[in-house]
Amino acid sequence: MQTMGIELESVNAGAVVLSMPYDTSLTQQHGFIHAGVITTGLDSAAGYAAHSLMADDAAVLTVEFKTSLLSPARGDRFLFKGQVIKPGRSLTFVEAKAYALVGSDEKLIATFSATMMAIVGRGGVQG
Amino acid sequence: MQTMGIELESVNAGAVVLSMPYDTSLTQQHGFIHAGVITTGLDSAAGYAAHSLMADDAAVLTVEFKTSLLSPARGDRFLFKGQVIKPGRSLTFVEAKAYALVGSDEKLIATFSATMMAIVGRGGVQG
Amino acid sequence: MQTMGIELESVNAGAVVLSMPYDTSLTQQHGFIHAGVITTGLDSAAGYAAHSLMADDAAVLTVEFKTSLLSPARGDRFLFKGQVIKPGRSLTFVEAKAYALVGSDEKLIATFSATMMAIVGRGGVQG
Amino acid sequence: MQTMGIELESVNAGAVVLSMPYDTSLTQQHGFIHAGVITTGLDSAAGYAAHSLMADDAAVLTVEFKTSLLSPARGDRFLFKGQVIKPGRSLTFVEAKAYALVGSDEKLIATFSATMMAIVGRGGVQG
Repeated sequence: MQTMGIELESVNAGAVVLSMPYDTSLTQQHGFIHAGVITTGLDSAAGYAAHSLMADDAAVLTVEFKTSLLSPARGDRFLFKGQVIKPGRSLTFVEAKAYALVGSDEKLIATFSATMMAIVGRGGVQG
Repeated sequence: MQTMGIELESVNAGAVVLSMPYDTSLTQQHGFIHAGVITTGLDSAAGYAAHSLMADDAAVLTVEFKTSLLSPARGDRFLFKGQVIKPGRSLTFVEAKAYALVGSDEKLIATFSATMMAIVGRGGVQG
Repeated sequence: MQTMGIELESVNAGAVVLSMPYDTSLTQQHGFIHAGVITTGLDSAAGYAAHSLMADDAAVLTVEFKTSLLSPARGDRFLFKGQVIKPGRSLTFVEAKAYALVGSDEKLIATFSATMMAIVGRGGVQG
Repeated sequence: MQTMGIELESVNAGAVVLSMPYDTSLTQQHGFIHAGVITTGLDSAAGYAAHSLMADDAAVLTVEFKTSLLSPARGDRFLFKGQVIKPGRSLTFVEAKAYALVGSDEKLIATFSATMMAIVGRGGVQG
């Protein structure tokens, strides 16, 4: 996340927004941000959103996710908005959306749907 | 891919293997490789496999994918094996698997299933 | 759809709502509606929504979908709400949600995300 | 499953095969078997496969699944082959494939990837 320049924009219970600047080191050969980078942003926003509804000592593990790539990732800046759909003691269902910002335009470029798991009291698994 | 140290191991019609060394700059806080990096490896192996069955001037676009994270990405080295399930003129269905190598052990750590699209004669879309 | 008693509630450009009564012939052994039935409702709502933005002579083909089952399908009646996320000449991205109605309560029980394809001028493929 | 005429062909540890005859009551308007029916067969084969590796008193709950529809479901008979990818105390990752049989030809028509959960000691949830 640091490598990618991702920053936290806002956190509410079950809803998190991250932002990321355009950076040429993250692009593929045509100048768009790579799908793996977009997925990292989506997974991070979704993971933070899930974590915001869990116990303080819980860690979040992504079990699986689906990403749909609606449009090429072209823009000055990107937003990743994570939203919990259904929290649970063990499993949490969460979605995220990626937006490309060009000037004041905000364009939906990718959707993400995941199952996440709360891990409690298992020291080294994942955060 | 270069940033990640990914290398091509083998290419056959519809089947591609990539490898990646362990690199601490790609880990999250517990020392495992980040899910976004694993997804990039899977997507790349699947994309090459799809491309190996397309016309020379076609580019490959990932429409959507699902990744299941079976086990933490811990290992000395990682393999990403892409395999076309059903090629098509427009859409190609492709799967990939990620393996962690520890010594001579090869452990399946993630599965990936994607829809990819051939883009012909549209200069700047994606490769 | 007829077997399942599914009815059209509303159609707008890119958004469709279907309803289905509870029917004991569609349940599994614990009295909940079977996941395959819920998926059929979701796929139908999503397919109609996609079709509402296509040319009159186009047919809709589901390429792939993911369903997340948030809660058991228990209720007097079910609603399936389909919504196009991004229409396209060839591919359309669409989502759907299933709700269980108990009295006046409406509970989200499943989410669905699909890629659909417009088929034009190929007589017998699918509608 | 009874409505659909699905029968058990074979059960091994982590691997199950089901079969289903062609039945005009399960088709959509073009004479192909409906995607919801194919999904029910895939989910059932995957669920049985997951259950074959669980404790006797465990029930299986499908958390989420993705289905890719490779080809229209046209054939005299259909096979659904479920295979556990990674069993777990709580979560099991499982895949399934659907085949259409025309004479002695066996054609892959759909793939399926799911997360399933073992439910122990909670009487009425799902089997």
